[in-house]
Amino acid sequence: MLEVLDQVRAGALSPADAVDRLSDLPYAEVAHAVGSTMIDHHRELRTGVPEIVFGGGKTAEQIAAALRELARRAGGAIATRIDPAKADALRALVPDLAFHELARLAWLGAPGPRPAAAPIAVVCAGTSDLPVAEEAALVAEFLGAEVVRVHDVGVAGVHRLLARLDAIRAASVVIAVAGMEAALPSVLAGLIDRPLVAVPTSVGYGVSLDGLVALGAMLASCAPGITAVNIDNGVGAAVAAVRIARLAAGR
Amino acid sequence: MLEVLDQVRAGALSPADAVDRLSDLPYAEVAHAVGSTMIDHHRELRTGVPEIVFGGGKTAEQIAAALRELARRAGGAIATRIDPAKADALRALVPDLAFHELARLAWLGAPGPRPAAAPIAVVCAGTSDLPVAEEAALVAEFLGAEVVRVHDVGVAGVHRLLARLDAIRAASVVIAVAGMEAALPSVLAGLIDRPLVAVPTSVGYGVSLDGLVALGAMLASCAPGITAVNIDNGVGAAVAAVRIARLAAGR
Amino acid sequence: MLEVLDQVRAGALSPADAVDRLSDLPYAEVAHAVGSTMIDHHRELRTGVPEIVFGGGKTAEQIAAALRELARRAGGAIATRIDPAKADALRALVPDLAFHELARLAWLGAPGPRPAAAPIAVVCAGTSDLPVAEEAALVAEFLGAEVVRVHDVGVAGVHRLLARLDAIRAASVVIAVAGMEAALPSVLAGLIDRPLVAVPTSVGYGVSLDGLVALGAMLASCAPGITAVNIDNGVGAAVAAVRIARLAAGR
Amino acid sequence: MLEVLDQVRAGALSPADAVDRLSDLPYAEVAHAVGSTMIDHHRELRTGVPEIVFGGGKTAEQIAAALRELARRAGGAIATRIDPAKADALRALVPDLAFHELARLAWLGAPGPRPAAAPIAVVCAGTSDLPVAEEAALVAEFLGAEVVRVHDVGVAGVHRLLARLDAIRAASVVIAVAGMEAALPSVLAGLIDRPLVAVPTSVGYGVSLDGLVALGAMLASCAPGITAVNIDNGVGAAVAAVRIARLAAGR
Amino acid sequence: MLEVLDQVRAGALSPADAVDRLSDLPYAEVAHAVGSTMIDHHRELRTGVPEIVFGGGKTAEQIAAALRELARRAGGAIATRIDPAKADALRALVPDLAFHELARLAWLGAPGPRPAAAPIAVVCAGTSDLPVAEEAALVAEFLGAEVVRVHDVGVAGVHRLLARLDAIRAASVVIAVAGMEAALPSVLAGLIDRPLVAVPTSVGYGVSLDGLVALGAMLASCAPGITAVNIDNGVGAAVAAVRIARLAAGR
Amino acid sequence: MLEVLDQVRAGALSPADAVDRLSDLPYAEVAHAVGSTMIDHHRELRTGVPEIVFGGGKTAEQIAAALRELARRAGGAIATRIDPAKADALRALVPDLAFHELARLAWLGAPGPRPAAAPIAVVCAGTSDLPVAEEAALVAEFLGAEVVRVHDVGVAGVHRLLARLDAIRAASVVIAVAGMEAALPSVLAGLIDRPLVAVPTSVGYGVSLDGLVALGAMLASCAPGITAVNIDNGVGAAVAAVRIARLAAGR
Amino acid sequence: MLEVLDQVRAGALSPADAVDRLSDLPYAEVAHAVGSTMIDHHRELRTGVPEIVFGGGKTAEQIAAALRELARRAGGAIATRIDPAKADALRALVPDLAFHELARLAWLGAPGPRPAAAPIAVVCAGTSDLPVAEEAALVAEFLGAEVVRVHDVGVAGVHRLLARLDAIRAASVVIAVAGMEAALPSVLAGLIDRPLVAVPTSVGYGVSLDGLVALGAMLASCAPGITAVNIDNGVGAAVAAVRIARLAAGR
Amino acid sequence: MLEVLDQVRAGALSPADAVDRLSDLPYAEVAHAVGSTMIDHHRELRTGVPEIVFGGGKTAEQIAAALRELARRAGGAIATRIDPAKADALRALVPDLAFHELARLAWLGAPGPRPAAAPIAVVCAGTSDLPVAEEAALVAEFLGAEVVRVHDVGVAGVHRLLARLDAIRAASVVIAVAGMEAALPSVLAGLIDRPLVAVPTSVGYGVSLDGLVALGAMLASCAPGITAVNIDNGVGAAVAAVRIARLAAGR
Repeated sequence: MLEVLDQVRAGALSPADAVDRLSDLPYAEVAHAVGSTMIDHHRELRTGVPEIVFGGGKTAEQIAAALRELARRAGGAIATRIDPAKADALRALVPDLAFHELARLAWLGAPGPRPAAAPIAVVCAGTSDLPVAEEAALVAEFLGAEVVRVHDVGVAGVHRLLARLDAIRAASVVIAVAGMEAALPSVLAGLIDRPLVAVPTSVGYGVSLDGLVALGAMLASCAPGITAVNIDNGVGAAVAAVRIARLAAGR
Repeated sequence: MLEVLDQVRAGALSPADAVDRLSDLPYAEVAHAVGSTMIDHHRELRTGVPEIVFGGGKTAEQIAAALRELARRAGGAIATRIDPAKADALRALVPDLAFHELARLAWLGAPGPRPAAAPIAVVCAGTSDLPVAEEAALVAEFLGAEVVRVHDVGVAGVHRLLARLDAIRAASVVIAVAGMEAALPSVLAGLIDRPLVAVPTSVGYGVSLDGLVALGAMLASCAPGITAVNIDNGVGAAVAAVRIARLAAGR
Repeated sequence: MLEVLDQVRAGALSPADAVDRLSDLPYAEVAHAVGSTMIDHHRELRTGVPEIVFGGGKTAEQIAAALRELARRAGGAIATRIDPAKADALRALVPDLAFHELARLAWLGAPGPRPAAAPIAVVCAGTSDLPVAEEAALVAEFLGAEVVRVHDVGVAGVHRLLARLDAIRAASVVIAVAGMEAALPSVLAGLIDRPLVAVPTSVGYGVSLDGLVALGAMLASCAPGITAVNIDNGVGAAVAAVRIARLAAGR
Repeated sequence: MLEVLDQVRAGALSPADAVDRLSDLPYAEVAHAVGSTMIDHHRELRTGVPEIVFGGGKTAEQIAAALRELARRAGGAIATRIDPAKADALRALVPDLAFHELARLAWLGAPGPRPAAAPIAVVCAGTSDLPVAEEAALVAEFLGAEVVRVHDVGVAGVHRLLARLDAIRAASVVIAVAGMEAALPSVLAGLIDRPLVAVPTSVGYGVSLDGLVALGAMLASCAPGITAVNIDNGVGAAVAAVRIARLAAGR
Repeated sequence: MLEVLDQVRAGALSPADAVDRLSDLPYAEVAHAVGSTMIDHHRELRTGVPEIVFGGGKTAEQIAAALRELARRAGGAIATRIDPAKADALRALVPDLAFHELARLAWLGAPGPRPAAAPIAVVCAGTSDLPVAEEAALVAEFLGAEVVRVHDVGVAGVHRLLARLDAIRAASVVIAVAGMEAALPSVLAGLIDRPLVAVPTSVGYGVSLDGLVALGAMLASCAPGITAVNIDNGVGAAVAAVRIARLAAGR
Repeated sequence: MLEVLDQVRAGALSPADAVDRLSDLPYAEVAHAVGSTMIDHHRELRTGVPEIVFGGGKTAEQIAAALRELARRAGGAIATRIDPAKADALRALVPDLAFHELARLAWLGAPGPRPAAAPIAVVCAGTSDLPVAEEAALVAEFLGAEVVRVHDVGVAGVHRLLARLDAIRAASVVIAVAGMEAALPSVLAGLIDRPLVAVPTSVGYGVSLDGLVALGAMLASCAPGITAVNIDNGVGAAVAAVRIARLAAGR
Repeated sequence: MLEVLDQVRAGALSPADAVDRLSDLPYAEVAHAVGSTMIDHHRELRTGVPEIVFGGGKTAEQIAAALRELARRAGGAIATRIDPAKADALRALVPDLAFHELARLAWLGAPGPRPAAAPIAVVCAGTSDLPVAEEAALVAEFLGAEVVRVHDVGVAGVHRLLARLDAIRAASVVIAVAGMEAALPSVLAGLIDRPLVAVPTSVGYGVSLDGLVALGAMLASCAPGITAVNIDNGVGAAVAAVRIARLAAGR
Repeated sequence: MLEVLDQVRAGALSPADAVDRLSDLPYAEVAHAVGSTMIDHHRELRTGVPEIVFGGGKTAEQIAAALRELARRAGGAIATRIDPAKADALRALVPDLAFHELARLAWLGAPGPRPAAAPIAVVCAGTSDLPVAEEAALVAEFLGAEVVRVHDVGVAGVHRLLARLDAIRAASVVIAVAGMEAALPSVLAGLIDRPLVAVPTSVGYGVSLDGLVALGAMLASCAPGITAVNIDNGVGAAVAAVRIARLAAGR
């Protein structure tokens, strides 16, 4: 931006033209069209986090193109919600793609260095909640944070949770993933003094309403200090936790 | 019914007339119209529990008439959902009426002897849940059960609950009342081996949805063995618990 | 726990170390990790009911590992929500597995002796509700209760229900399973004096909303004493009924 | 309409003008503006039922004007959803207005003769459902039908209902009004061979959802032949039943 | 029943035994267990309509057994919600089964004579609503009514509807089937004086909510006299309309 | 903005300082804080429509301050959702305020000249929908459009609507306001070739769900070309219609 | 219609017969039954837009017949919601059919000349929203409008949107398509003075509720002037926008 | 706890008695019953945040007792959801109570020193959202954080937001409060790299659904890193933000 203004000062650009240039600039210099997808390379500068490709509702071709363009610039790129069939199609297009079946994640290349981040605990209530917990853990690691996994600590046996409290308290921020044991974040929030990001999962049936009741229970809880992300949104929880963990690391 | 059949045997009644008499009998001998309200005096015989007058949506006149008719036959009668204004109107009609403001209950006379029942624990999560918990406790006492009250044992401080476990375990059946701390029954169910009746309350705001989320969370919980009643339904929980407590008393 | 305290008394353990030991103890001595699943062998001690593996959202490998670990300790183990494809995969892993297709249950081994329990009636409204009713009946039997099955007694022909009342009244507790005939528990509750656990099913279409309306109708009913479990939750109804039936057997 | 065409034939009106006249005619000759309200005097010709003024959301002035215009033409007119305060305001404007507080109905004048109609049974589950039942009964009577009232026959004591079956079966069509006893129409539909119009009421609390669950339960019932109207819609049920009762009377 | 009472009179049966016999009688003499399905042969006597087998959620074996038992007694039987795959399975079990693919109906044999019924109009808004409309029409014909089909008369072109009014008015009762054109019953109800049964369909997307909005719009309409059945419930509409049409035929 | 750039060119401002100035400029020169409310005087430049004060949830003091600041700059200003009590409080603060009780609008001063706009028809289904229709009409007039009001043309008597078609077709854009007659826009859209903005109202009860069903019915309709605004949102419909009407006037 | 009246004038038709003829005429002369589907050839005359075949819930045979009949009369015809399997079946029936896979559109022939229309901008938030955006764009082009496509301008990077404002402002009306970036229309509406039609998409998961939350957010936004169509309803947005664009072109 | 163990070591307490003492200890030493309310003085030790009294659903007496007990121990105490009437009742009981009407907060005394915390930005979209924003800001200050207030920066004029970005970016964590401008957090999250806690408000009408749509829109947004709290839950947002801000301050 300064460059444009220097040109104005130097008389190489009229003020009127500069107005036009300035309004286009932030995007024009960074966007590279990949088919009809625009890749926003400035996003990491603005938000600290690169674009993560949401694979749901995109074709393998669209995902492959986006991953390649992101990896070309940044070293590594990651896509979420990749089911096994789409993973196969992707690997046919991008042979050096890596895939994590449980977490439904695909990635390409290795990311460059990230800002320092304090450790994050990913606490998971039940075995059926593991895919979402692992999505959160892997994305947090992709963003440069160290992750402690604490699994199968539901509240139906609250002792299981109490027995793992030390490991949880050692982290600077906690991600709690639960569906049928949606009480987990409420109980946990009363036992720790760290930020707690709750991730409801769509595990369950009947009145679970595909995770809506778990989400509601987490938000309605009287244990203050819990914040929540969308159902099954391991990525969102990871990004939020990493932003906090970087602050805790003195960034 | 035997009486009708005896008359048939004695020839005092033709079989055809008996058919008509029999189909009317179960109701005709016990129903006394009070205005347009029919009082079902046989209900206690059939179900073990007398009619309890639901005061919501009824006028003071209708409630007074029903209470008087029930008390005349059974010694004592009880009405629920009586707000202070309706209580005043009721007392003008029935001077010897008693009223419990917190529990919104009115009663007339004293019930006769009830079947034996084992003790019931009424566990209440927060101060705002007390009206429902007290409705449950008083109705259970009206039905002849001994009640242990355990208050303010929410899960935001799970130690408060653990500290009272002995008192809770001493009961034969547990009623757990909670709104914003809807996790309470889930945690409790993993700690006791008694039947547990959960009562969601409409305490809360926003995503609480007037208790719907608390109800959903209780039912969706993976802690098996929890059963639930309608939101704020202290009466229903009391009746269910008393039926169980009578079984436990060897009835 | 006494053992730890004895060591403190004997001076073999410092009070500070005992604090650490004690907080870990309840879980550490009983939990055996099976992959990322923790098996809670103490659950039956605390709650009277062993862990029942919820098969929904778990892989065949996860289910097989959990069943094996539970059966190794307790003699027998059971898993729910097993569809035929998953049953085939399970049997490939655990050849001596038994499978009940209608009830979607798999089990391994035979449970040891259970506490005495009074008889339970499982009342089922329609043919389409049978899978849930059978899940409830088989789990109750697995937990040691005797079960009386009363099928196809919907309210569209209320005489069918009246004709079976004696069989129902002979049980100490009643499980009523219904979807499109959600009125069944309301009618039944007015005819018996036993605890009644209602199980809504997801049978139906349109406004049935996958069982939500049946559940709501059961809870909103003015027949007091009905309690309900989640939609299609035969397991939860069985556990609740067995807890009651054990009380009724004088436990 | 014939009149316009006769004018065309006679040359008194050009075909082009007739096109314009004809499109305006059906409404122009019958509509009399009352403020901004249009009174549709042809409605009874088309539908067999005159306009009934819905009082909700209208001012006393608007209701008074509509009642006066309707009564002027047809002899009598009726308005619904009139609470006591609005009734007072109406009576100040229209001194000879009659008012039924329980049913929230106001009427003016007496209707002329109506087509013959067979008897209608209005069956009401609970005392709290009476306002809606009485709205249905009074509107049916206003439309010329004879009404049999059968009150307080909920399913919590199914014998109460069975005892009144003869009275119900004597009618040609049945209106069943219920809120917390929403099972009533389902049970009734299995016992009679007459058309049955179910009216859910907003009586209840919690999961009743202001009548939505009662409506859903009535529509989801597997007892075929039940039709339903909107929650608390006594008027709609009356109009539907009267249309049927007129057919049954040989109209 | 008279028979039992005659035995009492004759001394062949004690009154006490008669009480037992009588309570079992209404069902015992007519129910024939078909596997776990009870066939209620008395239903047609009580309700004027035989049991119609709801095929959803039943196995081909269960449906075949029920159809055979019903047809054996009554000459003909009908099952609904039969998709092509289930139809194939059924035909393998019951070779002489007939199947209507669009209406998803299967039937066996021919029904005996039915009571007289006046003609019924089945009015269908869009092509996509035809399966439900045809289910209604065929079931009405199975029950002995004459049906007039009026198709594709949506309100997006209200002239199409006006042009068919005479055909519609010639019927004694009208079934209106609509999904995306849910306004059809509202418009129609203002143009006819016959009973009108509205059937919402699940046709549509987005805010259609699988037919819930169509149902709501039909019930919320200010055109009085519309009654509705469950979404896609052609059978229920047919039964309701036939009950009315029999009354109109002077039954 | 050009001014800032001219200063850079003239050397009066360093490029770095200009960057800061520029990012603040668009807002700083036009925003005047009124307490904690920011008035966005540039909005009319950007969007063609000035800020309209939404009175819901604001105090009389906040509304008065906003109206005064807007009127000071633009000549006239308008506030919506003003109930009579708030209107009284407002008039005490702003004596020259005008108030329209039915439409719940308050305004101050007179707006300056507006761009030309073609006529708009506001079509209203029922008397109870008038407040919303009048809010739309008055706001459209405030924004400089001519409005034709067509009232009480519900679909329960479709002839009423057909009779007014010429008046409606004479407008360039149509606003259709309806609650219990939510079919109105669907029917109308099939009869005209103009843009049609549907406004659902919260008039109704039961399944109306405070307007949600009317909104859903309007959007789910198969009559293409209907667009909708929020329930009771007369203002939004007016702004949308005026934008269209200005285009139609050749702007 | 004039023709009929001329016959009356000439005495060739009696007034009474003319009444009958007239009521049938608008539809009879234009409707051609295609199986049970009625094709409304007058629709374009009345509404400016021909019938567009909604392919959802129709068989390939029904769609083929409707397309052929429409194309025979009008030169070109179009069908929506055609998935690849249905497209294959259609092409087997109609070999010269064209198909656009992304937009799920099939068309036959080429439409005749359309009225002039100003340019329309179709703004699309994310790659996953493209199918709906392209449906809107292609239908608008089929109806004769010029379309400017602006893709991938979500609000997560608001600069991307600002950079394309000039292209958007050059259109006379804007269609904004968004699912997970439902904020797009709110932001856009504050930046332009053109009519804006918002199309929510069903892209997303969890609380997205298949597009319901995006729709709600668009309608609840305080940015006045936004109107919305049903979720994923590209066709409806196109028709609405074309009606506006024709007005803007001076029609 | 060490004290108990020391007694065991010293032989002053038997191990068996110690088991009993230990299970009671965590609660017994800190809980002081205030009527039926238990005050959990250990909460600040465990969670870093003292108990904040939720005033909704509590009587003035209950609130006063809780505030007095908390302030007696901790120096200062705070209660939320205090409407003006309840504030008057409270001041009659606790004369030295302070009250903030807009934020509906009451407090007593002054809190002691808190841990250091980095600055928090409270960003508020509209004037009607101020009560919730101010509740968040005051509670954060009560907990020892410095707060920067940024008001009236809705997205309908996105420049207003861009102009305040520097102030927002200067904070370590951002609370964004919005109802009708629920797009605010989505837009903001794409512009900053700090943790962002979104607070939906119940401001709005119609499809706003009392804040549910705002909440849904915030959670469904594709801008990763947003976390949310319950509708109108300023307290919860403050507690979450303070936990983060303390980490950022190096705690």
